[in-house]
Amino acid sequence: MFKFLYFCYNDAMTKMQLQEGERIDQLFSSDVQIIQNKAVFSYSIDSVLLSRFPKMPSRGLIVDLCSGNGAVGLFASTRTKAPIVAVELQERLADMAKRSISLNQLQDQVTMICDDLKNLLNHVPRSGVDLILCNPPYFKSRESSKKNVSEHYLLARHEITTNLEEICQVARHALKSNGRLAMVHRPDRFLEILDALRQNGLAPKRLQFVYPKLGKDANMLLIEAIKDGSIEGMKILPPLIVHKDNGDYTDHIYDIYFGQKKGQNL
Amino acid sequence: MFKFLYFCYNDAMTKMQLQEGERIDQLFSSDVQIIQNKAVFSYSIDSVLLSRFPKMPSRGLIVDLCSGNGAVGLFASTRTKAPIVAVELQERLADMAKRSISLNQLQDQVTMICDDLKNLLNHVPRSGVDLILCNPPYFKSRESSKKNVSEHYLLARHEITTNLEEICQVARHALKSNGRLAMVHRPDRFLEILDALRQNGLAPKRLQFVYPKLGKDANMLLIEAIKDGSIEGMKILPPLIVHKDNGDYTDHIYDIYFGQKKGQNL
Repeated sequence: MFKFLYFCYNDAMTKMQLQEGERIDQLFSSDVQIIQNKAVFSYSIDSVLLSRFPKMPSRGLIVDLCSGNGAVGLFASTRTKAPIVAVELQERLADMAKRSISLNQLQDQVTMICDDLKNLLNHVPRSGVDLILCNPPYFKSRESSKKNVSEHYLLARHEITTNLEEICQVARHALKSNGRLAMVHRPDRFLEILDALRQNGLAPKRLQFVYPKLGKDANMLLIEAIKDGSIEGMKILPPLIVHKDNGDYTDHIYDIYFGQKKGQNL
Repeated sequence: MFKFLYFCYNDAMTKMQLQEGERIDQLFSSDVQIIQNKAVFSYSIDSVLLSRFPKMPSRGLIVDLCSGNGAVGLFASTRTKAPIVAVELQERLADMAKRSISLNQLQDQVTMICDDLKNLLNHVPRSGVDLILCNPPYFKSRESSKKNVSEHYLLARHEITTNLEEICQVARHALKSNGRLAMVHRPDRFLEILDALRQNGLAPKRLQFVYPKLGKDANMLLIEAIKDGSIEGMKILPPLIVHKDNGDYTDHIYDIYFGQKKGQNL
């Protein structure tokens, strides 16, 4: 759905590590390399933005739910020394993530668990998590017209194996009091997101909208909620504009991908 | 709180019509002239943006609640032929509005009523209104540290004589099914706004955030809710950025004030 940048580094890997159709992509603004497979699953700009959105705890425990091929947790690892537990139901994607963890020599910090997120408390202590990151399936399962052909994408994008309500329930049980859930999602489900959070004692506090261009409606939102927080004092962060009028990335997004400051925000 | 533009047209009025301290301001993008008094009440950018935010019904009935010196209803009158009923509790402000209506020869379209908005149904039929515009008091009455010296500003800015809950209740009774309430407010009260709307059967549908500059948090929001609507399908409209980095108005805001297209959005 979103344009993303590929940079192939196939030379860096042995054939044994890469399966058919896989390639290694790198976000130039970080040293992290991610094993991707366009036919199976590739991360997109939403994962990149989510990994940069919340303030990272310097220690404690971080969880990346619905982690796919591990991109969010891997990118987030560059911003903290805290251990990160990534959870993904699909074996094929979890396997890619595990190999990316090894490729980046992050075994001591990032742990990939292939399991249903319902079972999160089998892997982390109840009320023991400081921050949960989640790039969940965006679409309701009934929205069949938009379903992708690949089963991997289907499960990653549609609420078939999990949904908003379940994610928020799991977060409620896993987070410490004042722990935070940071999520990326779509604006058309904004009210449902707020309801699901609040019904689970998670108070939305920081909200950022992502617009494809300056004159366009938002097509993505980033939201952070605090367990046991009050409902007052919501902050709407500066707008994130992805493209300039001429189609190029704005300087802000260019910085995020390439790590080079071009002097102004847009 | 917000910077606004004054254009004096004192020559256009007889002394009888203007009271001490009053002046006539004009938004250059419209022909509407508004009687203002900085010591008593002056409209600000929020009124201007609110009057342009909702799609205007071409006929039916429009209400402007908390209308102050009538700016929102008067500006909105340029976008529709529908009758507009403006309601303001403070006699001093309602009187300014009445004289502005005469000054603009809008007596046939805009009616100013000096009354408590609780009594709205004494003036319009129950379930008979197509659109309600409202620029309500932003601050809770307990936020005394921010209270202004003038009693007129105090009542206009703090929830002393009315509050969010009451405004939404009144709107619920006055609006037709599928009628709309459009409001301007502050982001830090965003969740309370959503709650008050939804508790009164008003489904938020369009949302626009206003940012003082591109890299700054939003300091204003525009929201439109539909009576008896569903909670799905929220639209987040393009961001409204007020100032460029150099402090000038962005071209978009410049257009709104001066009605001249400068060729680009920002």
